[in-house]
Amino acid sequence: MANKVAVFRKEHFNAAHRLHNPLWDEATNDKVFGKCNNPHYHGHNYELIVKLTGVPDPATGYVYDLKLLSDLVRDEILERFDHRNLNLDTVEFKDLNPTAENIAVVIYDILREKIAKELDLHIRLYETERNFVEYPAI
Amino acid sequence: MANKVAVFRKEHFNAAHRLHNPLWDEATNDKVFGKCNNPHYHGHNYELIVKLTGVPDPATGYVYDLKLLSDLVRDEILERFDHRNLNLDTVEFKDLNPTAENIAVVIYDILREKIAKELDLHIRLYETERNFVEYPAI
Amino acid sequence: MANKVAVFRKEHFNAAHRLHNPLWDEATNDKVFGKCNNPHYHGHNYELIVKLTGVPDPATGYVYDLKLLSDLVRDEILERFDHRNLNLDTVEFKDLNPTAENIAVVIYDILREKIAKELDLHIRLYETERNFVEYPAI
Amino acid sequence: MANKVAVFRKEHFNAAHRLHNPLWDEATNDKVFGKCNNPHYHGHNYELIVKLTGVPDPATGYVYDLKLLSDLVRDEILERFDHRNLNLDTVEFKDLNPTAENIAVVIYDILREKIAKELDLHIRLYETERNFVEYPAI
Amino acid sequence: MANKVAVFRKEHFNAAHRLHNPLWDEATNDKVFGKCNNPHYHGHNYELIVKLTGVPDPATGYVYDLKLLSDLVRDEILERFDHRNLNLDTVEFKDLNPTAENIAVVIYDILREKIAKELDLHIRLYETERNFVEYPAI
Amino acid sequence: MANKVAVFRKEHFNAAHRLHNPLWDEATNDKVFGKCNNPHYHGHNYELIVKLTGVPDPATGYVYDLKLLSDLVRDEILERFDHRNLNLDTVEFKDLNPTAENIAVVIYDILREKIAKELDLHIRLYETERNFVEYPAI
Repeated sequence: MANKVAVFRKEHFNAAHRLHNPLWDEATNDKVFGKCNNPHYHGHNYELIVKLTGVPDPATGYVYDLKLLSDLVRDEILERFDHRNLNLDTVEFKDLNPTAENIAVVIYDILREKIAKELDLHIRLYETERNFVEYPAI
Repeated sequence: MANKVAVFRKEHFNAAHRLHNPLWDEATNDKVFGKCNNPHYHGHNYELIVKLTGVPDPATGYVYDLKLLSDLVRDEILERFDHRNLNLDTVEFKDLNPTAENIAVVIYDILREKIAKELDLHIRLYETERNFVEYPAI
Repeated sequence: MANKVAVFRKEHFNAAHRLHNPLWDEATNDKVFGKCNNPHYHGHNYELIVKLTGVPDPATGYVYDLKLLSDLVRDEILERFDHRNLNLDTVEFKDLNPTAENIAVVIYDILREKIAKELDLHIRLYETERNFVEYPAI
Repeated sequence: MANKVAVFRKEHFNAAHRLHNPLWDEATNDKVFGKCNNPHYHGHNYELIVKLTGVPDPATGYVYDLKLLSDLVRDEILERFDHRNLNLDTVEFKDLNPTAENIAVVIYDILREKIAKELDLHIRLYETERNFVEYPAI
Repeated sequence: MANKVAVFRKEHFNAAHRLHNPLWDEATNDKVFGKCNNPHYHGHNYELIVKLTGVPDPATGYVYDLKLLSDLVRDEILERFDHRNLNLDTVEFKDLNPTAENIAVVIYDILREKIAKELDLHIRLYETERNFVEYPAI
Repeated sequence: MANKVAVFRKEHFNAAHRLHNPLWDEATNDKVFGKCNNPHYHGHNYELIVKLTGVPDPATGYVYDLKLLSDLVRDEILERFDHRNLNLDTVEFKDLNPTAENIAVVIYDILREKIAKELDLHIRLYETERNFVEYPAI
């Protein structure tokens, strides 16, 4: 990847969620998801890091204007998920368990549509300071 | 406060909540609490710092064994609030709006009962990295 | 301060500055301010924590709506200082050396005018992760 | 404390230590200090925050030049404790249990001798990110 | 690595160690390892980040339950190394210099035995906030 | 990359800069660079993480002595850029826009000359906590 630079923008959102598999009985859900299966939901401060990789534009020195990336993440991701209940308030997780893994893939798929194909996209999502995920895996 | 040392222990819990005043109509709740009034809840990673102030025991060099303080916070606070919906799953916030201010006062009142009166108690609670509160105010 | 709670909001701004005393010759300025005396300026990511202390409003559970505090800091402080050269672009530091101490006092004085007198105001300002100041001193 | 500003400098050192009371038998030491009583020692990255409070010098805008404070902490504290075994390599903890509380008091006493009496001194010491102490207590 | 997601769990432990090559004389050890060669040991708060890469299970949305990963790291790594003297209290570093590089490789080898081969494993280890290592290198 | 370990050292520097393309008129510069185009400059606390990848030396357990890496970064990078105006005080950015992307490439090119070819080199540079870059891209 000679000449390529990666640029990163960090944003955050707060959301409620519940981990649950509707095909399983309650005992199995409890055993697998433990406290995360609370039917009344719990929540997190999600920290999201979006990475774009490409060749800097010689005229600007930018791979991508990080102010524009921040605006894009705000419009496409924070507007959908910030201060929402992921299970109840979103179409994306109506039938998809909102684990950190699945949230990262969903965010990737949304942003991938909005960013030129010449740029590689990568997502890191912190559910807590100690639990986080990346997609696609490096 | 000559001779007195303050000791601090940091713990965290994840919870869902909704800010809402049941005496107000929905328009007023929306105007005052904005996105935090989402009827389906949102959530946070709460970071809690408990501070105890006193004279170190000459035999141990401890004001308070921080391992025991961690156990106490786990038993009294995390067991109640971690992975819970503060509005629905707790008696403390059944009729009390779960703002960071009120959560800090509730935590103080619970722990105050469990800690010897010779020790001063102080609570810092982070709702997000950028929004936090302390009680009592210094 | 029984019943009083302190609430904090963290914001940041980026600025250039130079430390310099125009009454001194260059050798003295160099000796006292070292690299900070660079006539072409250097810069920092300033992290600002604004603290307000008061009794929570029973109707809201808020000492002060932190969204409104964020807006106030943006309008009054970030608009003035973010992405500015403190020495050249501001009236506040035209004749005042922009040390962290002086910046904190200036920010305090600006915000003090905009916040009700019943609330105590306190400023913490990070110039770097390792160098920071508070005003008024506790 | 009108007009007074507090300035802070953060430094760090790495050290080994063991918590132990030589007047007690091993069973009591084990019960009180647990894993911290390991006779072969364990260790920490200590983060030290030194706070000085005073009136800024009008000629400089400084309460205390933080570069000089950094040098002072390096000469007086880091030279003594960094990469040392606190129990074996220092005179200060030859007969004093090196708890965070006692280390903070020792650091305070050393620095208090070196800093003008007009300036208040205060120490915060992190033993881990989750366990820390302050002296004198505020 | 289409479809693959990486999940991360952060844990920490505190340990004492000494860097030393028994085949060298003391002058060479001093020259190479400096303060880290202190015969009485020094110590660190090690922060460990374990990364597993694989395809999420469609039934759970998990690559690996991070609660189980936390338990595994506690049983296999923290039980061995937390509050220990790496040189004296462990078999792993009896004849191996406990540099961050070597500790990371040892942790990898221990965990690799316990995790299904379909999952890639990767270790990041912080010795201090400013010094850290990864294995295997990406 | 079997057997290879990556080692990282974090350093920081403070600098002023301005983003500007001299081939463009002021309206275009304003539109593209916004506040970053302030002719009087603004500034940042840059956090720099240098990564070296190689096989640990069996005699030391080191890929590269991080104390020596710190010294190298200080001599080659901090001496050039710390407390400087990147546009005015450096030859590297006399005709090159000092975006984070370009700064990272310049730092890479300087250090690449000083480090043995057997070791891979990689740069991460934080302009703020929320905006950062890496070169070469992974």
